[in-house]
Amino acid sequence: MPATPSAPRSSRTRSWWGWGYTDAHPDDAECAALGALLPGTLARPLPVPRIADLSIGRPAMTPPPSLTHLVTTDPSARAAHAMGKAYRDVIRALRARPGRIPDLVAHPTGDREVADLLDWAGEHDVAVIPFGGGSSVVGGVEYRGDAHRAVLSLDLTAMDRVLDIDTVSRSARIQAGALGPVLEEQLRPHGLTLRHFPQSFEFSTLGGWLATRAGGHYATVHTHIDDFVQSLRVITPAAAGTSWRLPASGAGPSPDRLFLGSEGALGVITEAWMRLQERPRHKASASIAFADFHRALDAVRAIAQSDLAPANCRLLDAGEALLSGASHDGSSVLVLGFESATGPVDDRLATAIDLARAHGGHADDRLATAIDLARTHGGHADEHPVDRDASAGSAVSAWRSAFLRMPYLRDGLARMGAVVETFETAATWDKIPALIEAVRTEVGAAALKITGHPATVNCRLTHVYPDGAAPYFTVAVAGRPGAEVEVWDDIKAVAGEVLHRHRATITHHHAVGRDHRAGYDLQRPEPFALALRAAKDALDPHRILNPGVLLD
Amino acid sequence: MPATPSAPRSSRTRSWWGWGYTDAHPDDAECAALGALLPGTLARPLPVPRIADLSIGRPAMTPPPSLTHLVTTDPSARAAHAMGKAYRDVIRALRARPGRIPDLVAHPTGDREVADLLDWAGEHDVAVIPFGGGSSVVGGVEYRGDAHRAVLSLDLTAMDRVLDIDTVSRSARIQAGALGPVLEEQLRPHGLTLRHFPQSFEFSTLGGWLATRAGGHYATVHTHIDDFVQSLRVITPAAAGTSWRLPASGAGPSPDRLFLGSEGALGVITEAWMRLQERPRHKASASIAFADFHRALDAVRAIAQSDLAPANCRLLDAGEALLSGASHDGSSVLVLGFESATGPVDDRLATAIDLARAHGGHADDRLATAIDLARTHGGHADEHPVDRDASAGSAVSAWRSAFLRMPYLRDGLARMGAVVETFETAATWDKIPALIEAVRTEVGAAALKITGHPATVNCRLTHVYPDGAAPYFTVAVAGRPGAEVEVWDDIKAVAGEVLHRHRATITHHHAVGRDHRAGYDLQRPEPFALALRAAKDALDPHRILNPGVLLD
Repeated sequence: MPATPSAPRSSRTRSWWGWGYTDAHPDDAECAALGALLPGTLARPLPVPRIADLSIGRPAMTPPPSLTHLVTTDPSARAAHAMGKAYRDVIRALRARPGRIPDLVAHPTGDREVADLLDWAGEHDVAVIPFGGGSSVVGGVEYRGDAHRAVLSLDLTAMDRVLDIDTVSRSARIQAGALGPVLEEQLRPHGLTLRHFPQSFEFSTLGGWLATRAGGHYATVHTHIDDFVQSLRVITPAAAGTSWRLPASGAGPSPDRLFLGSEGALGVITEAWMRLQERPRHKASASIAFADFHRALDAVRAIAQSDLAPANCRLLDAGEALLSGASHDGSSVLVLGFESATGPVDDRLATAIDLARAHGGHADDRLATAIDLARTHGGHADEHPVDRDASAGSAVSAWRSAFLRMPYLRDGLARMGAVVETFETAATWDKIPALIEAVRTEVGAAALKITGHPATVNCRLTHVYPDGAAPYFTVAVAGRPGAEVEVWDDIKAVAGEVLHRHRATITHHHAVGRDHRAGYDLQRPEPFALALRAAKDALDPHRILNPGVLLD
Repeated sequence: MPATPSAPRSSRTRSWWGWGYTDAHPDDAECAALGALLPGTLARPLPVPRIADLSIGRPAMTPPPSLTHLVTTDPSARAAHAMGKAYRDVIRALRARPGRIPDLVAHPTGDREVADLLDWAGEHDVAVIPFGGGSSVVGGVEYRGDAHRAVLSLDLTAMDRVLDIDTVSRSARIQAGALGPVLEEQLRPHGLTLRHFPQSFEFSTLGGWLATRAGGHYATVHTHIDDFVQSLRVITPAAAGTSWRLPASGAGPSPDRLFLGSEGALGVITEAWMRLQERPRHKASASIAFADFHRALDAVRAIAQSDLAPANCRLLDAGEALLSGASHDGSSVLVLGFESATGPVDDRLATAIDLARAHGGHADDRLATAIDLARTHGGHADEHPVDRDASAGSAVSAWRSAFLRMPYLRDGLARMGAVVETFETAATWDKIPALIEAVRTEVGAAALKITGHPATVNCRLTHVYPDGAAPYFTVAVAGRPGAEVEVWDDIKAVAGEVLHRHRATITHHHAVGRDHRAGYDLQRPEPFALALRAAKDALDPHRILNPGVLLD
C-alpha cells in the first residue's frame, strides 16, 4: 500500500543549544525560581547563548561540486550539529565552549546520496557523524580529537517518509530520519502505531532509536526498540544491504542485531521495516504509594515476574515522587498502566494492585482509572507520547507531565550554574537494592566533596524485567562557576565506578557514545570486542564513521 | 545458591544412527505397516544398521599425552558422532554410507579443557565440531571435505551441571552440555523451569539450543531461546569471555546475539545464565476445527495480533491433522493452549475461541479444557516436554503424542525406503497463503517427477507472530532404492528455490548447518556477511571451528 504523500513538520523553533523547542524553555524568572531550590547556585541565570558569540571559523574543507547541493557550511547549521543534548553539551554552549564544530552539514534525501557522501568522505579522510534528532545525551553526535582532515555531520532528517505500509502484516517501511511525531502522523491514517515513545520522542528519529537501542513506551516485555525491527537497510563504506522482512529467523546470528546499537560506527541505517500495532482501545492506570522503598522494590519485582505485562510500571523513590508532584509525604510511588487493543485490562490492573498491596502498597482507589477508549472516544486514543488519561490531578498525570518537562527544567537549572544530569543502568534483582543504595550514598558524597554543596540523588525504575530492573538516577547540585563540565565528569566517574563494581550496565538505553566508553570497554566481553573491531575494519576500512564511539 | 549435587542421566540406550532411544524405535512389523501407507516403498524394511558394517578406519591423528584422558578413538563413539539426525543422516547410516567419521571424540569436563583442546587443534590443523545432543537436522555436526589433517568431535555432554541458582532474579548458570531433561531435573527442586521444549528436548543440549537459536515451547512472544539468555560464556581460539548478567542493556550491539546462532563457527558456548520461570499453575487448551484452511490462517493471524499470547497456537492443515489423529474429516485443526503461574487463563482461551469462531472455526466445547494445576495437583505441574493435560483422547492430546513420536516414525519409514523429511520457514502474513500453496504444489510436483510416486506435503504453523508465521512442512514419498539422499537433495533444492522466491527464511529454527548454506548465502545481507567473515577471521584464525557452517 502506498504511504501518505508528505511528512508533516513542526513549525516551532528547535533550540540549537538546549532541549526541544525554544518556546518551551523556562524564562529568566522561572530559572531563578528553580535555582532557589538548590543551595549555592547563581543569583541570576546565565544568558541564553548566541551562535554569534561562538568562534566557529571557516570549514576545513568544502564539498566537491557534485555534492554541493547536499551540503551546507552555514555557521548556524554547523553550530546546531556540534553536540547532542547532554547536560555537558548544554553547559558547554552556555559557557561558549562547544565541542568541535563540524565543517560541513549534509542533508541527503536518499540512499544514493548517503553512499556518495560516504564515498567522498572515505577518499578525503573526512569523519562522518550520523545525526538524527541530535538528542544524544552521551556525546554520540560530536567529534573529538583531530585525526581527520574535516568533520561532516550527516543529518538524515530529510529522509523522513513512511514509504510502504503492509496492513496485513501490520508493518511499515520507514526512512530513518523521521522524527517520532513525523512517523506517527503518517501511520495514523492507517490505524496503526509504532508506539515507541522515549522521553525524546519529539526530538529523535527512528534511525537514532535503532542505532542506540532506545528504550521506549513499554516498561515490560518489549522495552527496547530492538524487538520491533523486521528488517534494516544499512549503508556502509564497504557495502550496502537490506535484511529480509521476516517475523523471525534462525538463519545464523541475527544480521540486524549487529547494527542495532552500533551507534553509526559500522554503517548508516537509512530505513527499516518496523512492526506496528493497533492503537489501544482499553487502558487502566493507578498509582500506589509505599512508605518503604525496599518493599516497593519487592512489589515491582512480583509484578515483573507475573505475566501481567503492564505497559507502564515506573517506581519513583520519595525524592523523585516529590519532584514530579506524585507524592508529598515521603512515599515512594508506583505508576502502573495497562493497555490493550484486544479487551479490557481492569482485571490485570486489579491483580497488579493486589500484588502491590501484599507488599505494603496503598492504592488510592479514587485514582485507579480504567478507560475504555473505544467507548468514550469512538475508538480514538490520545496518542501523545505519554498518553494523558482521565485522571487529571492524579499522581499518574503529575508524573507524566513532569516526565516531558524535566529536560527543559534541567536546562533552566543549568542556566543557574547547577550541575543537573541523569544516568541509567540495569542489573539483576539480587543486586538492585544494594546498587541503588550505593549510587545514592557514594554519588551524593562525591558531589558534596567535589562542589562543597549538598546534592540531590533521586532514583526511579523506568523498565522492569523478570530477572532485573533498570534504575534511572537524577543528580542535582550547585556547580563551580566555569568548571561545571569538570564537576560533572568527576561525579560521573564515581557513578561509573559504582556501576562497574556492581556489574550493572554502563547504560540501559542512553547508549555508549563517547561519554560511556570507559565503562563500556570494561563491560564488553573480549570475544565480542575482537569481533566488533574486525567488523569495523571490514565495513569502515578508512575509519570515517563516527570515530570514537564504541571503539577507538 | 549452590545447585543440586549431581545431574541425572537416562539409563535408556541412545541410537547411534536414528532418532532417540532404541527401545522406542518401530519394530519391523510397524515399519512394514507404515510403509504400506506410502505407495512404492519397499516390501520389507532395510535392516537396522550396525557399526561393525561400517569401514571406519584408523584415526588420522592421535591426541597428545596431555589430552589423552579427554579423547577417545573408540569406533562406536566415532560412528555415533559422525552425523546428526536428519533424514539424510539416517538413510546414509541405513545404506552404510555415513558422512566422514571423526578421528577423535573429546569429552571435556570444564572450560580449561575446552581451551586446551582448541589450542591443540589450532596448532595441528584439526577441525573441531562442537557436539551437544547430536540432533542437528541440517548437517550441523558433521565434517565435509578434507581440508584439515584430522577431525575432532567436541562432545560437551560431560558439562551438564546447573552451577548456580539465583531464585530472587529467577535465573541459573547452566553448563552448555546439559540435555533438556538433565537441566530441568536440576531446576525442579527450586520450583523453577527454563520451559524450553523443542521437539528434540530429550536429545539436545542447552549449548545446542543457543548455538542454533532453537525454537521452543512458546508459540508466541518468546519463540526462540534467544530471549531467555542473560549471559553467555564463550571460548574461542583467540579469546574467552563472559558477558555480564544483565536483564537488558543498551551498551553497544548485543554481545550475546552474535554468538546465538553462530553454530559453533565462532566459538564454543560452555555455559549460560538463563532466565527461568515459575512452573505454570493454570492451563487451558482447546482444539478448533476449520473447513477452510485460509480462514484458519486468518483466525490464527487475529489471535497472533491480539495480546492474548497463547503458549500453544499450532495450526495443522488437513493432512497434518489426519496424520496426527487430530481430525479425520478433512478439517484443519488449531491447537490452542494457555498457561500462567499468575492466574486463571480461561478468559484468554475464551477470547481466542471467539476470534477463531469469527473466522469460521468450530470449537469442540467438550474438549476445551481448563486445568487449575494448583487446585488439582497441589501445585505440581506435569512438566513433560509437551505437557499432557486432562483432555485424554482429545485432538490436543492426539497431536501432542504424535508430535513426540514423529521422528521415530520418520526413521521407520526410512527403513522402508521412503523419503520423509521436514523443513520450516517463516514469512510475513502478506506472503503466507501464497507461500504455503506454492510449497505444496511445487514441492509435491517435484517429488512426483523425481520419484515417479505421489508425494504427501503437509503443513503446520509452529510459531506465530503479529507480523507473520512459521510454516513447517512434512514431505513423504517413496524413494529410489539406493538413491534416497540424492532424491531428497533434489526435492529440497526445489523447496529452497520456492522459499527464496517468496523471501521466506531458509530456516526458522532448524539452523543453517551445511544443508542450508546455499539459501543462507542468498538471504544474508552483504554488510553482515562482511562482518561475520571478519569476526570469524578474528576469533578463529586457524579456521578450525565447525568448518563449512555459515561460512566457507
